[in-house]
Amino acid sequence: MQLNVLTIVGVGLIGGSIGLAAKRRGVARCVRGLGRSRTSLERALTVGAIDEVHLDEVAAMAGADLVVVCTPVDQIADQIVRFAPLCKAGSVLTDAGSTKGMIVNCVGQKLRPPPCYVGSHPLAGSEKRGPEHADANLFDQRWAIVTPAQHTPSEATERVVAFWRALGSRVRIMSPADHDRVVAATSHVPHLMASALAGSLPPEYREFAASGFLDTTRIAAGDPDLWTAIFFANRTPLLHAITQFTALARQFRTALEARDEAAVRRLLQTGKEVRDALGN
Amino acid sequence: MQLNVLTIVGVGLIGGSIGLAAKRRGVARCVRGLGRSRTSLERALTVGAIDEVHLDEVAAMAGADLVVVCTPVDQIADQIVRFAPLCKAGSVLTDAGSTKGMIVNCVGQKLRPPPCYVGSHPLAGSEKRGPEHADANLFDQRWAIVTPAQHTPSEATERVVAFWRALGSRVRIMSPADHDRVVAATSHVPHLMASALAGSLPPEYREFAASGFLDTTRIAAGDPDLWTAIFFANRTPLLHAITQFTALARQFRTALEARDEAAVRRLLQTGKEVRDALGN
Repeated sequence: MQLNVLTIVGVGLIGGSIGLAAKRRGVARCVRGLGRSRTSLERALTVGAIDEVHLDEVAAMAGADLVVVCTPVDQIADQIVRFAPLCKAGSVLTDAGSTKGMIVNCVGQKLRPPPCYVGSHPLAGSEKRGPEHADANLFDQRWAIVTPAQHTPSEATERVVAFWRALGSRVRIMSPADHDRVVAATSHVPHLMASALAGSLPPEYREFAASGFLDTTRIAAGDPDLWTAIFFANRTPLLHAITQFTALARQFRTALEARDEAAVRRLLQTGKEVRDALGN
Repeated sequence: MQLNVLTIVGVGLIGGSIGLAAKRRGVARCVRGLGRSRTSLERALTVGAIDEVHLDEVAAMAGADLVVVCTPVDQIADQIVRFAPLCKAGSVLTDAGSTKGMIVNCVGQKLRPPPCYVGSHPLAGSEKRGPEHADANLFDQRWAIVTPAQHTPSEATERVVAFWRALGSRVRIMSPADHDRVVAATSHVPHLMASALAGSLPPEYREFAASGFLDTTRIAAGDPDLWTAIFFANRTPLLHAITQFTALARQFRTALEARDEAAVRRLLQTGKEVRDALGN
């Protein structure tokens, strides 16, 4: 895949990593960064994630072959709807948001005729922020999930699939709803529980938190605004996944209360089997 | 500190790391390993964690200056009670168990006159097992908590404190009960929640578990038998810490159900503040 112009909207850790990966792998001749803060865009320019700094949407979209929106999930749909008419015929828009149903539905309802928009979500990231933490290999061998809607032209889907593959990702196509159930269980519940674990640690015990606690709570350092938006964009699947988790946590508690060692051992064995199967 | 003979009982990851650290730092002239499996002890010998393989308790204790018991928490107290009479006058026994109240009380009740036993717990470890994963720097800058009982001779406590310091640890003295409350919150609840998180992941979603899920559940790979023993040895403080965690997790759930974005953001902010304060 070789694009003339790739426009990245929101050049933080994810957007910056897309820019770096696209440039290192020769995926785009010119990478534009669009944002609201010149300072932040210039940091992205300095680390080599983008070639051009854009504060103006019209200029950033003009002639772009592919647009990737990497802003917080509660901003993406409105931006896609605003940017699509600024793009040339044949250009494709996608995003990197952590939830898909709300965004894909909202774009589908507001944009007529159906735009060349295809949702996507690279399952890669970090609790860190900003283009200075961008990593050209962030997507290498990681999943990118692509979530076309019912009426998405297959050509657009193929272009987005080819884009993520060109950045090093493995690609899986699924419906927005399936995607949202997957990330509720694999990402959003872990985030919520890591946060609750960190938040419930008595302050006087903090100095004794060792590697196990640090690993288990690492993602709780993520940005509260971003994660509030993610939780509410995926509220129903998240509540369902919380219920699944809570049921198992309650089994642990009940078995402890009942002094049922065999039941506790069985629960721990199940957790170990799953974790062992996941590798490092 | 310079010991003539250090005897390590149970030479797995922790025992092996104690042996390696003691030898590298010149803490002991001779390190003996006592265990039930010759194969496992010979692996410890091969990696340089011990100098002598012992299957006989009498020979292993004879003339030892310091004995460190690194077996599962449900075996430690009985072993201390059995080993103490085999030791020479002036020798000191300690252990590396993850819980302290049950062990210290049990030893105190069964052993007359009060032995030169002082409980301790290095806050360092890994989900891995066996002497082949031993690490000479495992204790470096990590806490070792030393938990003397009311009648423990201060000389014995000082010897154990000096020992952990010589291995690179920072040392804190606290009561067995205080220790158990600390580790319930910093280690045992995280383990239980990591296990519940891993166990509640639907099998068909496993392939999509990314770095956040892997971090959050890493400790769930720990040995189910060891952890069942730990949970039951620390049952009451653990149940209390589960209650603390559950209260916060429930606040998250209630706020999500009530669509209270400000409350969710506040909870995430608290988690982030704690996690940021802990460092990496």
